Amino acid sequence: MLIVQKFGGTSVGDLERIQNVANRVSKTKKAGNDVVVVVSAMSGETNKLVGYAQKFSKNPARAEMDMLLSSGERVTASLLSIALNEMGFEAVSMTGRRAGIVTDIVHTKARIENISPHAMSKALKEGKIVVVAGFQGVSSDGNVTTLGRGGSDLSAVAIAGALKADLCEIYTDVSGIFTTDPRIEPKAKKLDKISYDEMLELASLGAKVLQNRSVEMAKKLNVNLVTRTSFSDEEGTLITTEDEIMEKALVSGIALDRNQARVSLMGVKDRPGIASEIFTALAEADVNVDMIIQNKAYDDTTNIDFTVGVGDLSDAKSVVDRFINSKDIKDDSYNDTICKVSIVGVGMKSHTGVAAKAFSTMATENINIHMISTSEIKVSMVIDEKYAELAVRSLHNAYELDK
Amino acid sequence: MLIVQKFGGTSVGDLERIQNVANRVSKTKKAGNDVVVVVSAMSGETNKLVGYAQKFSKNPARAEMDMLLSSGERVTASLLSIALNEMGFEAVSMTGRRAGIVTDIVHTKARIENISPHAMSKALKEGKIVVVAGFQGVSSDGNVTTLGRGGSDLSAVAIAGALKADLCEIYTDVSGIFTTDPRIEPKAKKLDKISYDEMLELASLGAKVLQNRSVEMAKKLNVNLVTRTSFSDEEGTLITTEDEIMEKALVSGIALDRNQARVSLMGVKDRPGIASEIFTALAEADVNVDMIIQNKAYDDTTNIDFTVGVGDLSDAKSVVDRFINSKDIKDDSYNDTICKVSIVGVGMKSHTGVAAKAFSTMATENINIHMISTSEIKVSMVIDEKYAELAVRSLHNAYELDK
Repeated sequence: MLIVQKFGGTSVGDLERIQNVANRVSKTKKAGNDVVVVVSAMSGETNKLVGYAQKFSKNPARAEMDMLLSSGERVTASLLSIALNEMGFEAVSMTGRRAGIVTDIVHTKARIENISPHAMSKALKEGKIVVVAGFQGVSSDGNVTTLGRGGSDLSAVAIAGALKADLCEIYTDVSGIFTTDPRIEPKAKKLDKISYDEMLELASLGAKVLQNRSVEMAKKLNVNLVTRTSFSDEEGTLITTEDEIMEKALVSGIALDRNQARVSLMGVKDRPGIASEIFTALAEADVNVDMIIQNKAYDDTTNIDFTVGVGDLSDAKSVVDRFINSKDIKDDSYNDTICKVSIVGVGMKSHTGVAAKAFSTMATENINIHMISTSEIKVSMVIDEKYAELAVRSLHNAYELDK
Repeated sequence: MLIVQKFGGTSVGDLERIQNVANRVSKTKKAGNDVVVVVSAMSGETNKLVGYAQKFSKNPARAEMDMLLSSGERVTASLLSIALNEMGFEAVSMTGRRAGIVTDIVHTKARIENISPHAMSKALKEGKIVVVAGFQGVSSDGNVTTLGRGGSDLSAVAIAGALKADLCEIYTDVSGIFTTDPRIEPKAKKLDKISYDEMLELASLGAKVLQNRSVEMAKKLNVNLVTRTSFSDEEGTLITTEDEIMEKALVSGIALDRNQARVSLMGVKDRPGIASEIFTALAEADVNVDMIIQNKAYDDTTNIDFTVGVGDLSDAKSVVDRFINSKDIKDDSYNDTICKVSIVGVGMKSHTGVAAKAFSTMATENINIHMISTSEIKVSMVIDEKYAELAVRSLHNAYELDK
């Protein structure tokens, strides 16, 4: 098998941990596999460099930040390669450039455009372990670029796709994807398998193990993704196509997003285009709107409710104020003591009654549902934040996720 | 004018010092010059990384060391560029690769083969300050290489040569080249100008401000080199062609090399090729031989004396032992309490009596001269180490170098 293994900053946080990673890689190699390793900077390094830059400028040029930040992964890659050499393996470290990772020219947030894996393929054919500096690439005009948050995961997935690897393992300090947050529901179970789409819904709802960009790319390139911990030999969670998952669970997991606020607009003038005007203005102010509900009031106006991230609340307020001043909206109110609970599962597509069970569970617990939104594989409910844990636990129980 | 300015590790040792460098560069730019800056890694960084690598392997692969060590200069280059941007200058940092520095493939000790300065020229034409990561280049097969000790100086000189810069300033913590070591002779004076050849003799004799590689390259590429301090505005010393130096001093400086040991071989068989055999064997053992004296003994044998660096002494001993065992040499003795004092000056070429004055000065002070060697611009004498300071001071005085 050809396996791509990615180790994040915590997993390579000091020299001892780098040695642990070398041991793990050597096991995989000894088992007869070809291995490409993708590494992040040692934890703390990137923050240190960002801190240095901030001392000189509040707004440093992005190309310079890429030059600065791309150094950390090079250090880890060469150290790991040296450790593997010392253990008797042939290993070679490669920069993003050397690995053939070509990106667009958007510094600090570059997107991978394509990968020319010749150097990697050649080294693998020679029996070498390839160690790639993650998070970085080279733009078509020859400058070093970085891929933004979660960039090393992206490097790993893209490399796995380009090399048609059998597996892409993402090592973190979490042992996999759970049916819900174990800190809320101790009976939460680790999933063996989950589909890309379920993972996307769980990630965007706060699971935080993988960035959506990486899952989307894995889905697009058909990469079998595994998240697991580098601190033990415990098996992780495989994220793959729906077809690969034989027994489709009705519900795979319960996600909780506390970072939500509700905006209520009362007495919105009922004229064509008003909703479009409001949401365009919000988009221009970079306010990310999630759920939207519109309903007719008793008079000639409508009420519009929507949710935004808590961090966007004051920006949303400024936008709404403009419409209040122009008398397009009569009144507004804001509530940041809400949360969003979501149940996710591909099985919902083919089964009825999944949503109804969620609502009845909330009713049994006397939890008032403020807003509801659904997709093919997801039901989300906005409730008061104080009921967050109760809602998660009772839903987890209702769908028997601990079984 | 086009000026290349190189700042070593101490000059960029912390963020405050990097800001000082930015201030100095900005002054040069504001005065109407084009500026290319070459920087080393922040002092301590390279040693830290070498220490990391040593934890994993006593003998890490050299290509991996280059990957590892080349990261430090990138950090300094981008930080300096960010600082200059913040001060309102357009600046751009470049790796060795981007600056077009092509080397051979000898990792950790690469030699610069050529420079393609297109990217630098273009940026300069656009009015930008170019900040280059020193010490590094790229081999013809596309891998990052480093240039070994003094590598950033080499980068600066080679860039100055390729861009036909008017001046290449090397900033260190020393304010220039002195007539002798000021710690020995407080009356030592800083030289305004010195020729490449004089500098080469002074450097090899221990002046330690510049590596000979850099001076040799400056001579070859006809680069006007200035060494000066980054900690004050004091003028430095210009190292240039002899033609540029109008008033040729008889003697420019007195150098002292304490790192010498004397090897005496007695009763060497007087047959053809014996000297060649001995010195070939020493060369094969990587022993660097400096001065050699051979004289006939009373019997059928000769005596051979030579000097080596103290660090090579035990290797030299092993080689000599082989000749003793084969009875080619009767007896040997070693003395590491000697030193070498040299007087250097291009004026010697056209003046007589310079060497004679050195010998008479030693005689006046009752200092016994063990060995003498001379070149066109240098007279070296081996004496007992205990007389080192006395010899330097009396020679400095005899040639009136404090005037």
